[in-house]
Amino acid sequence: MKIVIIGAGGTIGQAVVAELGARHDIISAGRNSGDVRVDLKDYASVQQLFRSVGAVDAVIATAGNVHFGPLGEFTPEQYAVGLNDKLMGQVNLVLAGQHVLNDGGSFTLTSGILTHDPIRYGSGASMANAAIDGFVRAAAIELPRGLRINAVSPNVLVESLPAYGAYFRGFDAVPAARVALAYSKSAEGAQTGQVYAVH
Amino acid sequence: MKIVIIGAGGTIGQAVVAELGARHDIISAGRNSGDVRVDLKDYASVQQLFRSVGAVDAVIATAGNVHFGPLGEFTPEQYAVGLNDKLMGQVNLVLAGQHVLNDGGSFTLTSGILTHDPIRYGSGASMANAAIDGFVRAAAIELPRGLRINAVSPNVLVESLPAYGAYFRGFDAVPAARVALAYSKSAEGAQTGQVYAVH
Repeated sequence: MKIVIIGAGGTIGQAVVAELGARHDIISAGRNSGDVRVDLKDYASVQQLFRSVGAVDAVIATAGNVHFGPLGEFTPEQYAVGLNDKLMGQVNLVLAGQHVLNDGGSFTLTSGILTHDPIRYGSGASMANAAIDGFVRAAAIELPRGLRINAVSPNVLVESLPAYGAYFRGFDAVPAARVALAYSKSAEGAQTGQVYAVH
Repeated sequence: MKIVIIGAGGTIGQAVVAELGARHDIISAGRNSGDVRVDLKDYASVQQLFRSVGAVDAVIATAGNVHFGPLGEFTPEQYAVGLNDKLMGQVNLVLAGQHVLNDGGSFTLTSGILTHDPIRYGSGASMANAAIDGFVRAAAIELPRGLRINAVSPNVLVESLPAYGAYFRGFDAVPAARVALAYSKSAEGAQTGQVYAVH
């Protein structure tokens, strides 16, 4: 398969490339690195991505920013960071890609454990992640030509504990390599409309 | 209790007023009707709402628009309708209200069954509803002074079947009066972080 991975330079992205790269043709894409540059927040840039890479069989997104901060100080603009970047950035891939992916191709988006298991300062992430899961379930029943869509909802990563561990006390962190398996299941399997919790 | 109901003129809002009006002091608010006018999309308007009504014990939102349309034609701007209106409109009430509600007061937001049970043309609603549910679970653990927050996730209403029934074939529609009970449970009970499915 020909697979585009957006966010291939991140911790999860690198693990997905390691998992899928041995048996598939990988095109890496990112804001500041990769074979192709793309700003997912910019719909025109996403459309240009698909013109650049041509017909592909799978799109995997492991990119997306959200703002973290105390609820008592959160502003509408700070929620918009997660909505515009992590949520709509990934949705833009589906809106543009549904018209150009090969028949039976797949989208795999990334949400996260905070959808159902919140932490302090994480309301923006819980909002954006939940929206991604809801969108994936709905988009799955409307995609044409056998196209599929799933989300991967990872726990905090073992690799992220040095930076974020203090915010995720008690969470049973998972290695990125285990999270990468869920992207393989989505892209190489046949399921659709699923949220793969790697918790 | 002193309860503000935003969207009191809608089908659910009227049922909530009927349920809670007999034993509480109700202030109705809406874009074009009610005791007080408010545009939930405008954070300054939401702040003005709380200045107008003074200290209250419960805020109930039964207002919010989303765009419906086929996935193949959906645009980022059409998803923004649900994100800015139904999602952030209700979130704005929490951001502003958390600083002024009486101790132990509650927020009750409205999501919907499409979070987990999608229909054709409903990806914008599934996205916005899921985001509301995720936000509610997260906000609940950070609200100060015993403040509480829950969401009500109604099925399609019996009262809405003449207009929308064709989009909800096979859904077991519920009367608005039954949905109103969930708002009562949220405002008059003691639970927080819950999504009350009235399905």
